[in-house]
Amino acid sequence: MKMCLDCVPCFVRQAADAVRLSVSSEEEQDRLMHNVLQWIGDIDLSQTPPAAAQMLHRRLRALLAVEDPYRISKDRHNALASRLMPSIRRRIAAAVDPLTMAVRYAITGNIIDLGAKNNVGLGEVYAELQSAPMQPVFGDLEALRKAAGLARTILYLADNAGEIFFDRLLIEQFSGARVTLVVRGAPVINDATLPDARAAGMEDIADVMDNGSDAPGTLLSDCSPEFRRRFDEADMIIAKGQGNFESLSEGQRDVFFLFRAKCPVISLHTGFAAGTYVAANRFERQKTAGERNDS
Amino acid sequence: MKMCLDCVPCFVRQAADAVRLSVSSEEEQDRLMHNVLQWIGDIDLSQTPPAAAQMLHRRLRALLAVEDPYRISKDRHNALASRLMPSIRRRIAAAVDPLTMAVRYAITGNIIDLGAKNNVGLGEVYAELQSAPMQPVFGDLEALRKAAGLARTILYLADNAGEIFFDRLLIEQFSGARVTLVVRGAPVINDATLPDARAAGMEDIADVMDNGSDAPGTLLSDCSPEFRRRFDEADMIIAKGQGNFESLSEGQRDVFFLFRAKCPVISLHTGFAAGTYVAANRFERQKTAGERNDS
Repeated sequence: MKMCLDCVPCFVRQAADAVRLSVSSEEEQDRLMHNVLQWIGDIDLSQTPPAAAQMLHRRLRALLAVEDPYRISKDRHNALASRLMPSIRRRIAAAVDPLTMAVRYAITGNIIDLGAKNNVGLGEVYAELQSAPMQPVFGDLEALRKAAGLARTILYLADNAGEIFFDRLLIEQFSGARVTLVVRGAPVINDATLPDARAAGMEDIADVMDNGSDAPGTLLSDCSPEFRRRFDEADMIIAKGQGNFESLSEGQRDVFFLFRAKCPVISLHTGFAAGTYVAANRFERQKTAGERNDS
Repeated sequence: MKMCLDCVPCFVRQAADAVRLSVSSEEEQDRLMHNVLQWIGDIDLSQTPPAAAQMLHRRLRALLAVEDPYRISKDRHNALASRLMPSIRRRIAAAVDPLTMAVRYAITGNIIDLGAKNNVGLGEVYAELQSAPMQPVFGDLEALRKAAGLARTILYLADNAGEIFFDRLLIEQFSGARVTLVVRGAPVINDATLPDARAAGMEDIADVMDNGSDAPGTLLSDCSPEFRRRFDEADMIIAKGQGNFESLSEGQRDVFFLFRAKCPVISLHTGFAAGTYVAANRFERQKTAGERNDS
């Protein structure tokens, strides 16, 4: 999915966030911001958003001389999600349809996304959790249920720290399959990496690996050969978040995408309003904009 | 009020909006956007936001060779507001305290601001109007009431098109004073200019003038001598919107500011969360953050 003009202010905001997270002097912040803005002025607008964001955040990390500007945010979101887990696990277990409920909460967790906005507050997360059980999920949940029931191997592409705890509760529903949980190969925005998978205890219930790439999405050509092999061979692939959707929606493989629609660019491509809970595979704009299944 | 890093993504979004409103070819949009981004990369971050936005929108209008990229949006917002006027006027007249109610609706109208976001939907305006009568207004409404009761001349600085219809309903409450309604001197974003004042029928109830400036705020040094004379001489000044607040809050004159807090930069400076209805004079951060009067 090609980026559009609306992606640019979002990149500028990400840059401002990263600069502020890493540098306290206002003068130095201004100097760095000018530098990044000049770079953004030359950005190639024909790329996918994750490809452009990968380059932007590499530059930011180099300029800031910080390996992981978002580490403190990620730790905070992990701690918050960790505290919420026991009650959400109980709610899923008590649901008439635990799989659907786990999908809803996994999508709810996708609001913890510092790529789409510059802060995620405790109040916002609690409010979302209250409404999660009632949220309509657009897409084909029955196809997901069937595919998960038949799959021997599931490749689950995580998105963000914090959110990865919610992913764990969904993966716990896939007891009949061998699940491989995949995180990014290096820090980028607040995307989950290996320390976040460990924080969520993913090793207890899944194989855990990284994809070898520092893009906030899944750019196959940039991923490790081992990841690409697993991507080709898995019976089923589940991909969380907008970044994975933006980078994989036009690929050859059938992927189940789970995400909150969070920005006008995604709305334009999918037809879904901001806030929509999306669970869809073989994503085609015409289809999803036309015939939506409310589950 | 000095701009901060968070203003930059907002300027980039305004640029993307203006480009898209004026040019349909994607290639041409990309070319123009690169040009503007390079310019924004050199922006002086020590200015007030309206001063920087004035320069940005001058450049945009020159690049796009369009005198008023937002004219269609402004006409649409005027038409929407015009349809809403009769029922709001009735609600104000039926209120126990019509002045306070008119202030609430005038602040509600301040959501019609394409500087702060790229679209204002019909649904959003209707939802705001439903909640308007119950909104707490932070600031000193009694001081405003007293000043308006004593004033022989009131200078009312309008903000946006559409919103200016709501301003009219407030000005109708000031029957004891001679009111001068001031709009921008030339098009900038969706700020009201003389055609918008005429659309709202302002000439029937007030003297109408423009301030001679194309800044989306009130930069006194950039305004006409006639405006500056009226600014010095008026018994009372009411200024609508964030742009007027950002440019006048640190000045010498006592100004009553009416606006919706709409962005993190304003929240940082005033202590008011986004969405807050603000009606305050002699605005000082310490005071307002400390002792707020809920009217």
